[in-house]
Amino acid sequence: MSNITYIYTAAVTLMTLLLLQVLTIVVAQARVRHGIKAPAVTGSEPFERAFRVHMNTIEQMAFFLPAMWLCAGLLSDAAAAAGGLIWLIGRSLYAVSYLNDPAKRGPGAYIAFLAQIALWLGAAAGLVRVAIKLGPWS
Amino acid sequence: MSNITYIYTAAVTLMTLLLLQVLTIVVAQARVRHGIKAPAVTGSEPFERAFRVHMNTIEQMAFFLPAMWLCAGLLSDAAAAAGGLIWLIGRSLYAVSYLNDPAKRGPGAYIAFLAQIALWLGAAAGLVRVAIKLGPWS
Amino acid sequence: MSNITYIYTAAVTLMTLLLLQVLTIVVAQARVRHGIKAPAVTGSEPFERAFRVHMNTIEQMAFFLPAMWLCAGLLSDAAAAAGGLIWLIGRSLYAVSYLNDPAKRGPGAYIAFLAQIALWLGAAAGLVRVAIKLGPWS
Repeated sequence: MSNITYIYTAAVTLMTLLLLQVLTIVVAQARVRHGIKAPAVTGSEPFERAFRVHMNTIEQMAFFLPAMWLCAGLLSDAAAAAGGLIWLIGRSLYAVSYLNDPAKRGPGAYIAFLAQIALWLGAAAGLVRVAIKLGPWS
Repeated sequence: MSNITYIYTAAVTLMTLLLLQVLTIVVAQARVRHGIKAPAVTGSEPFERAFRVHMNTIEQMAFFLPAMWLCAGLLSDAAAAAGGLIWLIGRSLYAVSYLNDPAKRGPGAYIAFLAQIALWLGAAAGLVRVAIKLGPWS
Repeated sequence: MSNITYIYTAAVTLMTLLLLQVLTIVVAQARVRHGIKAPAVTGSEPFERAFRVHMNTIEQMAFFLPAMWLCAGLLSDAAAAAGGLIWLIGRSLYAVSYLNDPAKRGPGAYIAFLAQIALWLGAAAGLVRVAIKLGPWS
């Protein structure tokens, strides 16, 4: 049937994609509302906010998703999903704050940053544990 | 030998990477042809088209690849690959249309959008099914 | 305990995320130092260098990570990690060179490009081998 055993991490990933999709729609609407014709991505500060919120989310996902999945595979599905949920809360706060006032984007970004560092450390700890177990010295 | 059981999804992923690599080369060539010196990414409308086609493809891949692989793992390799192929057709159409005329990028983008939403829904349905099967109520 | 059998590829992925995190911090510092207020991403050439190094790394990771993991799953963990290490060396050279002088970004980018093409070919070769093994003609 299914080979996936990381259902909590899978659920958090699906929720992350939902956030990303919402932000994509926000950009598309801002493009129309502020009359920014492709391929331009500048020329209206409110459009640029929406554009940067979306793009920055992808930039951070490039770290977050691999870190969360490695943490799931090497340490624990539940721990990875817990870290992922905190990341998702941080990034949602970041998006709402930034769209209202770019100067207020700090706290949400910081929460997500701490969560993704924790996921990386969890994955690294799991990797060391697996390496010790598999090593020729065991 | 191999632990991968999702060979259709793997094949579509390799084809997606091929499209991405072609678009990367298109940007690099446009940079030279239109004399846009790094780190600038503006200053020539044709260059900006190539740049945005490439970047937008990556933006959409951030949703598409996780959604397709979760659909493969939680529902079906063949269904995920079928949705992925439609996405790939849509994005190829988007790229060719956009490079010729940004105003014509709609249809291809829309096909790919529908395909990635379908993949997300397939993954979510698979997750619910797995959760019901694994739950304490089963 | 752990279901991950690709520990070399996992290790290279964690190192890649470390490079990405360093580049994220370089952008954040350049934003403060050169007084570029969000959502702007232009207005200072040194900031634009840091921004483009970070973004281009993500653009290339969109190809690299799927190609390396497919190569690991379909061919060999050690081969994938070896290609990944070369990619990482190339991208580190690219980052340092570009930050000093954008015109010198070529060699590092080229090394990483060759590594990611090799990973794609390794994954494709592995896929063909698996398909032949699984096919109705076997």
